[in-house]
Amino acid sequence: MLESATRMQRIAPFYVMDLLAKARQIEASGRTVIHMEIGEPDFATPQPIIDAGINALNAGQTHYTPALGLPALRAAIAGYYHSHYSTVVEPANVIVTPGSSGALQLAITVLVNPGDEVLLTDPGYPCNKHFVQLAGGVAKFINLSQDNNYALSLAAVKAQWTDKTKVIMLASPANPTGMTIQQEVLQAIADFARSKNAFLIVDEIYQGLEYGARLKTLAGQFDNVFVINSFSKFFCMTGWRVGWLVSPSAFVNDIDKLAQNIFLAAPTLAQHAALQAFEAASLAILEGYRQAFQARRDYLYNALQELGFGLSEKPAGAFYIYANSEHFSADSYQFCFDLLEQAGVAITPGKDFSQTHPEKFVRFAYTREIPQLEEGIARLKSFISAE
Amino acid sequence: MLESATRMQRIAPFYVMDLLAKARQIEASGRTVIHMEIGEPDFATPQPIIDAGINALNAGQTHYTPALGLPALRAAIAGYYHSHYSTVVEPANVIVTPGSSGALQLAITVLVNPGDEVLLTDPGYPCNKHFVQLAGGVAKFINLSQDNNYALSLAAVKAQWTDKTKVIMLASPANPTGMTIQQEVLQAIADFARSKNAFLIVDEIYQGLEYGARLKTLAGQFDNVFVINSFSKFFCMTGWRVGWLVSPSAFVNDIDKLAQNIFLAAPTLAQHAALQAFEAASLAILEGYRQAFQARRDYLYNALQELGFGLSEKPAGAFYIYANSEHFSADSYQFCFDLLEQAGVAITPGKDFSQTHPEKFVRFAYTREIPQLEEGIARLKSFISAE
Repeated sequence: MLESATRMQRIAPFYVMDLLAKARQIEASGRTVIHMEIGEPDFATPQPIIDAGINALNAGQTHYTPALGLPALRAAIAGYYHSHYSTVVEPANVIVTPGSSGALQLAITVLVNPGDEVLLTDPGYPCNKHFVQLAGGVAKFINLSQDNNYALSLAAVKAQWTDKTKVIMLASPANPTGMTIQQEVLQAIADFARSKNAFLIVDEIYQGLEYGARLKTLAGQFDNVFVINSFSKFFCMTGWRVGWLVSPSAFVNDIDKLAQNIFLAAPTLAQHAALQAFEAASLAILEGYRQAFQARRDYLYNALQELGFGLSEKPAGAFYIYANSEHFSADSYQFCFDLLEQAGVAITPGKDFSQTHPEKFVRFAYTREIPQLEEGIARLKSFISAE
Repeated sequence: MLESATRMQRIAPFYVMDLLAKARQIEASGRTVIHMEIGEPDFATPQPIIDAGINALNAGQTHYTPALGLPALRAAIAGYYHSHYSTVVEPANVIVTPGSSGALQLAITVLVNPGDEVLLTDPGYPCNKHFVQLAGGVAKFINLSQDNNYALSLAAVKAQWTDKTKVIMLASPANPTGMTIQQEVLQAIADFARSKNAFLIVDEIYQGLEYGARLKTLAGQFDNVFVINSFSKFFCMTGWRVGWLVSPSAFVNDIDKLAQNIFLAAPTLAQHAALQAFEAASLAILEGYRQAFQARRDYLYNALQELGFGLSEKPAGAFYIYANSEHFSADSYQFCFDLLEQAGVAITPGKDFSQTHPEKFVRFAYTREIPQLEEGIARLKSFISAE
């Protein structure tokens, strides 16, 4: 018998992919589907960034860059930390990666030994546990509660900490909850991890998509903190595949040799285009997008609350609402399928984000315009009423 | 103490990077360097492919593709196997990846369990052993000999085979030797591996860059063979980061979920541009490049032979000549540094490709025009005479 590696049995697919396949069938049959499952902005990449891509192509920028990224882009990212966060990050600590996926893989691979424990949140981004597993690490979960607005505390971290804990991974704003973590809490966790000779990886890829107070960053301030970011979400550059990692100085050489071996480099064209992302013309467009996301959030949050979904406080970031669907179904995965089949509305089941209570939750993404969200809510309302 | 994972001590950087840093110093001081170390074509991406990239940008193709790639590109790659190799490969078995690096990582991660042995060639592509190690596998080497033109035999494979061998990885044409493996030998190795419930991964990324008989492919013909390819080398699309993997059907679902988790997808723009790579206009340009490489090979091979380097028979593919430098130095790494510092010629030390006899060999890349190669040879000649 030809057998794949045993790890493959422990790697879950994105369950939403099953829903997407079903959605394509429905659409092929001529019915419409309202897509509220999609984890990427519907907005186009801002035109100045696209123009920069075209200019780079016309200039023949098609060869490899250094493994750590174009020096000019590393400097531009450092400059963004200075201008937008008033934080000093050295270009030498900025590593340009193929999407934040690349950054996650680099950070985890450089830190996690087989058998090391890595603390993650439940609910959380589904890929993290797989990156941990690929490095031979053991994912352990800190359960966050909707009743408590998915707040994370140092006490909760300490409660899960063992002698084997090497890394804790957190996201702010977080997928799927849209919640943010207070800077003081993050700093306290970083300090605690430091006292244990352990590391904090902070996923800041939804930063910029904030609807209240501007978030701060942990980049450049701790010798045990890695910050992950990306041009995908706030900058609307998903398909370009370019993100970044801010690493403490002591690990840059290791990351360099790892990046040389596993990626060679991030896409050249995307790096040249991303240089334009921090310019005023792009940022002005992105601010318009941010305001549109905020209006969608406000609409969707109120609508879901009226329908009877269990909600946390209004999420302060990202473009997701994680909702308790127990009132309508004891099995959120089945609920998602029935909703799609009977009403043509696609949302993501909790199974993609949680080990603890997947059956109680669903994720709505507001990555569609309000008229579409309204149609989705109307369909959802009929579906629920008919149940 | 904050410590990185112990695997990092076993991951080597590309030693040529040290030479590149030195080369940049030399160039910054105003001296010229003849670059014969670079493993990517100097040629620009063919204009029809660039134009397709620009069109895709203008059409707003900036969102994610499916993890396995754009369906149209998977079909186009399958079509290329049909038109150029008269081989049937189903689009469903073609997985588009972020460069061949992505394809290598997928194939090895899906197959190799911790403790499994993976047979590689020495000399060979340096990243392969690191991908094996990241999966917890153990790299074992089959030593190839210049005296024998780096030929590989089934007997040599059998001699290194143990009960733990799960995969053998081969490349044709190979980096750094430029040698090809006879189709009958590859088939016999695939059959032998099949009899052991083991796998063969064939790196065909230099295919197309062939200077004798057209090579065949193993794609689509065995249920235990994975074929790696790329748009980087023959198609001159290095910086676009797009390659592919042809997988047996039984492993496509596993690869899909792995790709979803570790990459999300290959760059969208590069995939749209690559659609144009198989069109007649692009292939005509690429044929011109191939002929130019052949002329460079002929020039460089004869020149190195005249200078007294130890050579195998003339390499049939890729754009490298792997040369024995023992006649000039007992330490090829030092030889490379001295040559660079004293004569301004950059080549790659054997240390990047070999565990067995790194000190005896250097790699020359003919990725520069003949006048530059001539200048490099003139400098090399003076350097050798002065020693």
